[in-house]
Amino acid sequence: MSKKNLAILLRARMRSSNHSAKSSLSQFTKEIPSNPQDNQSGDHILRNSSNFGTNGRVYDVVRETMHSAISATKTGGSDITLNDFEEGYFSLSLEDRGKLLLALAKEYDVNREQVRELIKQYLGLETPSSDDYAELHSSPKKEASSSVFYRVEWSLRHALKPTYETFFERLNTHPGGLQFLSILRADLLLILTKENMPSLRALDSYLKEKLGMWLSPATLELHQITWDDPASLLEKIVAYEAVHPISNLLDLKRRLGIGRRCFGYFHPSIPGEPLIFIEVALMETVAQTIQEVLWDNPPIPENQATCALFYSISSTQPGLAGINLGKFLIKRVITLVKKEMPHVSTFATLSPIPGYMQWLLSKLSSQSRFAEEEREGGTKSNPTSSTFSEKVLLPEEEQALMSLSDDSSSGSNGMEVLLNLLSAKNCDWATSPRILPVLEPILMRLCARYLLQEKKRGKALDSVANFHLQNGAMVERINWMADRSEKGIHQSGGIMVNYVYRLENIEDFAQSYFGSGQIHASPGIHSRL
Amino acid sequence: MSKKNLAILLRARMRSSNHSAKSSLSQFTKEIPSNPQDNQSGDHILRNSSNFGTNGRVYDVVRETMHSAISATKTGGSDITLNDFEEGYFSLSLEDRGKLLLALAKEYDVNREQVRELIKQYLGLETPSSDDYAELHSSPKKEASSSVFYRVEWSLRHALKPTYETFFERLNTHPGGLQFLSILRADLLLILTKENMPSLRALDSYLKEKLGMWLSPATLELHQITWDDPASLLEKIVAYEAVHPISNLLDLKRRLGIGRRCFGYFHPSIPGEPLIFIEVALMETVAQTIQEVLWDNPPIPENQATCALFYSISSTQPGLAGINLGKFLIKRVITLVKKEMPHVSTFATLSPIPGYMQWLLSKLSSQSRFAEEEREGGTKSNPTSSTFSEKVLLPEEEQALMSLSDDSSSGSNGMEVLLNLLSAKNCDWATSPRILPVLEPILMRLCARYLLQEKKRGKALDSVANFHLQNGAMVERINWMADRSEKGIHQSGGIMVNYVYRLENIEDFAQSYFGSGQIHASPGIHSRL
Repeated sequence: MSKKNLAILLRARMRSSNHSAKSSLSQFTKEIPSNPQDNQSGDHILRNSSNFGTNGRVYDVVRETMHSAISATKTGGSDITLNDFEEGYFSLSLEDRGKLLLALAKEYDVNREQVRELIKQYLGLETPSSDDYAELHSSPKKEASSSVFYRVEWSLRHALKPTYETFFERLNTHPGGLQFLSILRADLLLILTKENMPSLRALDSYLKEKLGMWLSPATLELHQITWDDPASLLEKIVAYEAVHPISNLLDLKRRLGIGRRCFGYFHPSIPGEPLIFIEVALMETVAQTIQEVLWDNPPIPENQATCALFYSISSTQPGLAGINLGKFLIKRVITLVKKEMPHVSTFATLSPIPGYMQWLLSKLSSQSRFAEEEREGGTKSNPTSSTFSEKVLLPEEEQALMSLSDDSSSGSNGMEVLLNLLSAKNCDWATSPRILPVLEPILMRLCARYLLQEKKRGKALDSVANFHLQNGAMVERINWMADRSEKGIHQSGGIMVNYVYRLENIEDFAQSYFGSGQIHASPGIHSRL
Repeated sequence: MSKKNLAILLRARMRSSNHSAKSSLSQFTKEIPSNPQDNQSGDHILRNSSNFGTNGRVYDVVRETMHSAISATKTGGSDITLNDFEEGYFSLSLEDRGKLLLALAKEYDVNREQVRELIKQYLGLETPSSDDYAELHSSPKKEASSSVFYRVEWSLRHALKPTYETFFERLNTHPGGLQFLSILRADLLLILTKENMPSLRALDSYLKEKLGMWLSPATLELHQITWDDPASLLEKIVAYEAVHPISNLLDLKRRLGIGRRCFGYFHPSIPGEPLIFIEVALMETVAQTIQEVLWDNPPIPENQATCALFYSISSTQPGLAGINLGKFLIKRVITLVKKEMPHVSTFATLSPIPGYMQWLLSKLSSQSRFAEEEREGGTKSNPTSSTFSEKVLLPEEEQALMSLSDDSSSGSNGMEVLLNLLSAKNCDWATSPRILPVLEPILMRLCARYLLQEKKRGKALDSVANFHLQNGAMVERINWMADRSEKGIHQSGGIMVNYVYRLENIEDFAQSYFGSGQIHASPGIHSRL
């Protein structure tokens, strides 16, 4: 074992980097995903890896530890080796982590010789009959031959698993290993944004699939987070709240106090770390603006509440991106709240529309370019642009926008005016009493279109919309100037949306959304289209 | 949906069977595995299934529900359908359950046409280079081709999964579904003892693998069971205790009281149901007999304890047979106890040796037959028997046994005498002051041999020995007349064994046992061989 070597090297390294390997864990989780630009190695993180210089020896030791951990006898994997590996991994630079992950992807991949050998055997065997009853009356010889078939098929299925699966599985059962794997995947995702290599992508798909299985809703526990919880947990809620940042302890206390609820999903092997959490406000009616929720002080007495409003859902682990942890969260929270307070009959959200402005700006920019080309080219216009060009604005909207064009903004057509207004850095439009009334009907109509009609692979383009629709919600109402924060204006023109969960429809709506991508919406929203 | 039909049929059926579908769940879990003989359909449970008579319509509806549950769109599986299925399943006779499971195994098996198609594609593709760095400098064309390769490999891996995997996964995330799957597997195991069909065996292997994954130690929570726990949990401890039956509430209270501990592994989605539990006695020295543990009343003050004795480990779910749930249990319990009571320095078990007598009787019976043949055949003895014949007894043991032969037992050689003594129904030998001293050294020596030398596939033949050895224990001591209960005498001639866990050796011992099957034992045990 290289434990001693590793310890010496790590100690040397630690002195130079001036923080312990342990501390880099938490540091890493937070820093890397949010500030990928901070990394000095820049875009070509792996291509320069031959000049790794002074870290080479540490890298070699960590890699050797990885090898020991993978090749240890089947079930008796040593916790010490895995601890060494984790510690060593955290001492590596992102560049060296990338190198290590590439080695993992390449050298501990599928044993393809074995696969080819088994395929040869497999193709030579007779497929067992698929008739239910044939087998009951089959001869012992037939039975033996189908036994062989099933065994070879089993072997082939297992041979197609990469060797690194063992490593992942061993880490999963190792104390702290599941969280380590989530950090490792966060690194992997970051590295993939720079070096999109097929083998690393395959490693990521595999790890994602495994994590999704290990974190299935069946293994997650719903826990109500209250002011009585340990500070170490509460500080995480403050740190992770992604939708409406928590400004101070008083703010947090309010969100856990009377008229409010907070629930988190926890995994038994990641104690004290909520993987996703949801904040609920108990209200008399479905709130239209986030200000009502965040600054509604004091809240109404709980026995007067008829509505539970989900106003914030945050997932906390960048390494679990793409894994749907919230799948059963809302349903379980609804059941819990309903049990505690039977008088609550409406379950709704007040949700951001994170992709709206981005979609609108890119639509306006491409369409106003097409319009420009058409105008310049006259009749012999570019056939490509006319194929893709569409009427984004109604005639009266075009007119209203052009009327603004004189002073505060300019543009040769309505779309250009709108584009210029919306992309101006200081977001003046949102505070101008002259511009705001003109933009309101336009942004509201386009927002309804964005939510109900813009899709990607048959599902709602907006990620939050997709989340709630697949959970069985419907689009109930969009609210003008519901989030006046800078982020709110920037992301969605200040518009927020209420999704509503109706207990009697949740199953059906979820199924029809999955089946055909059907988005259920209230008549009020439909009338805006 | 066939919900209405099902409800009508079930109601009709319920009236005739006179208990509700819900109740058959708990009833089934307990009855079937212990009393397989009660089943009237007898040995040929599936072969007669064409005459299923009046249950045919219920069966058809349940099967249709199973089909709906499997073919529902990928992620939007309906909880209602799954509930219907579970309810319907419980209303079926074991015979019909067998038919249904066979249909599941056959009709929702691997899509082999798709597999063959993908294999064809796979074999036509170029395998990506396994060199770490080749990919970094590879051409875009090469990169695209290895992307295709990984994609096809991924598809092939997934195509080799049977369709019923979706069903199992959906049930796993369905509330109560994991426990349902464990009951389903208990049925499957029972059916396999009667109809060992390859497709059903394949279904079982797959389900076992899945359950093993879902119940990985990472998802299990260790909970100390105390007198403050709900009665609904405590009654399960009474019902499930498999090693030393709990006779009454007072007995249970003692096992949870001062000087005693009880810990269970729980899964978040099977609340209130311990999957495996372990009972611990805090003692001054390692107990030699189970009577000391069970009837040591009052126990010593806890601060005088230096030894934590694991005297009973019971797994509770017959459907989880073969899944090693106890893997990390002992290690975690040791850590917990050590933390609470640092003065406890010895962690040992007082364990049964469940396979000892069975092994010994079959050994004596075959060997005394060989001896008989040899004696009769003289020099021209059967070559087969002499190949397998071995000296089970030492000359002095032979002599001592023959001296008993006169009155209380008979036999033409020592082995026969021993065999006759041990297999006598009333176990007189165990209470005879004349026979006991003669048998003691013989049974103790053979027991040491059984524990240390008798193996199956390179692992200890005795299941309990194998369990502790793979957890990193060593064989410390065997104890004469340590369990005088009928079961104890019958299973192991009353002998019990102390396995000892030494913290500093657990890892190494577990690894060397896994790697080479090495069994660590104290000098005391070795000297008995």
